Amino acid sequence: MDADALSGLVDLARRTMKNAYVPVTGFPVGAAVLSKNGQMFGGCNTQSVISGMGVCAERSAIDHAVVNGHYCFDAIAVVSTLEEPIAPCGMCLQYIGEFSQVADGDIEILMVGASGHLERSSIRKLSHRIFGPSDLGLDLAPYRHRHG
Amino acid sequence: MDADALSGLVDLARRTMKNAYVPVTGFPVGAAVLSKNGQMFGGCNTQSVISGMGVCAERSAIDHAVVNGHYCFDAIAVVSTLEEPIAPCGMCLQYIGEFSQVADGDIEILMVGASGHLERSSIRKLSHRIFGPSDLGLDLAPYRHRHG
Amino acid sequence: MDADALSGLVDLARRTMKNAYVPVTGFPVGAAVLSKNGQMFGGCNTQSVISGMGVCAERSAIDHAVVNGHYCFDAIAVVSTLEEPIAPCGMCLQYIGEFSQVADGDIEILMVGASGHLERSSIRKLSHRIFGPSDLGLDLAPYRHRHG
Amino acid sequence: MDADALSGLVDLARRTMKNAYVPVTGFPVGAAVLSKNGQMFGGCNTQSVISGMGVCAERSAIDHAVVNGHYCFDAIAVVSTLEEPIAPCGMCLQYIGEFSQVADGDIEILMVGASGHLERSSIRKLSHRIFGPSDLGLDLAPYRHRHG
Repeated sequence: MDADALSGLVDLARRTMKNAYVPVTGFPVGAAVLSKNGQMFGGCNTQSVISGMGVCAERSAIDHAVVNGHYCFDAIAVVSTLEEPIAPCGMCLQYIGEFSQVADGDIEILMVGASGHLERSSIRKLSHRIFGPSDLGLDLAPYRHRHG
Repeated sequence: MDADALSGLVDLARRTMKNAYVPVTGFPVGAAVLSKNGQMFGGCNTQSVISGMGVCAERSAIDHAVVNGHYCFDAIAVVSTLEEPIAPCGMCLQYIGEFSQVADGDIEILMVGASGHLERSSIRKLSHRIFGPSDLGLDLAPYRHRHG
Repeated sequence: MDADALSGLVDLARRTMKNAYVPVTGFPVGAAVLSKNGQMFGGCNTQSVISGMGVCAERSAIDHAVVNGHYCFDAIAVVSTLEEPIAPCGMCLQYIGEFSQVADGDIEILMVGASGHLERSSIRKLSHRIFGPSDLGLDLAPYRHRHG
Repeated sequence: MDADALSGLVDLARRTMKNAYVPVTGFPVGAAVLSKNGQMFGGCNTQSVISGMGVCAERSAIDHAVVNGHYCFDAIAVVSTLEEPIAPCGMCLQYIGEFSQVADGDIEILMVGASGHLERSSIRKLSHRIFGPSDLGLDLAPYRHRHG
């Protein structure tokens, strides 16, 4: 991932963070995914008052890419208003992990604090095991070649 | 809602339905929301292999609008590959209901079958009671005037 | 449902409400389900700090019954600390609706305020349509005859 | 954790697995948690037809303990019908991680295959970082001393 793509992805995550819908906690988070063919899709957290509802920024960004027909990702960036970088929660790691099986490869995770401090890792490094659609023998081929 | 807006919204829901990520059941659903200032955002269902994860088309469309800074909706359309119209599930009705408190008004629900059969209802008609952020006294003002 | 069963169910919901894990909002809710063969199982809300995680009292009570091998319910009670009765949220109505297809019958919903005010309704009355496993042709027979 | 407690916990997980409600995939999972004061609570997966609903066995077991007023756990066991042990999914790791902050200590994770093959790990070993209620400064004291 080159420096331009990286800063573009982080910039998008920062812009979509501004749109977070967080009436419950007031804590906004932004994210952006980079698809294998170079497109970027942003996400933000959206809170519900019901336990079990709402979405984190990382899942929102992935869902946004899916709506546009992109399922294979090279990287995802996550930003918040905290000085230090935050990592995706376990639920988002699960989601990213499932899509790493679609991509059939690792997905880089870029975590950036408000201070600008950048931490780079990946779904394989942050997950001891990934359990996803491949483990159930589901057919992912239709989602692997939609965009060139 | 005029005929052009209605058919535009249904068309968008049909287009995004094609991008549904449904390796578990193979049953795609599409949706699209119309914001108060006339913009449309599509959604589709995205399935996970984990109980409690993934998103329906209606919530995906709303999350997509939120990422773009839109929180007040006039209408949402939902389409599937079934001949007859399907209604939003209870979880989506809850989500739409919460955003009807942000909009401080009813939200029309357009349900369209593959046959073209259109059914019109609204979140207030489909919900006996709506429980949302207003019931907890949460401040929704910041989300009411972002666009126009 | 006789008066003893009704008051027993409401009492159980009130007792399990005391165990609610609500570090986020401090708003406890209790619930209890009555299985077709007369057993009762309590539930309470359990909150997470992550959007999309945690459980409401009604779903908790149903999950508790399932752990004990009960899938067919006649009634569910829900109580909170508010003076007036509260209704299940849309997500819980969806869950109760799915299990009404397992029971192949309506499920009574008892809503009780702290004042003692009781409101009686049912899943069929509170849901305009119920979408569940039967609509996908899933086999529910194994869950219909486990207890008596 | 002594051998008796360990085999008791695994036995309970195997028994509750038999009650799993799995009309969607037919893949049952069982789990059981051991509270700090020695009580055990079982769980099983419960599936919904809606993306975003339903619960895994591990979260079901924790919710079951919460209903009974237990919030501090020493261990959780997970079993399935597969020969080899399976690990909790990311969403369950997140949930276990949040409760490890309530317990203010690590939580052992016992994974057992149908072959009897046992793998021992812990939430701290399986999570690179744990994000939970403590990170938001929420008050967990009320949940730390409920049971002796």
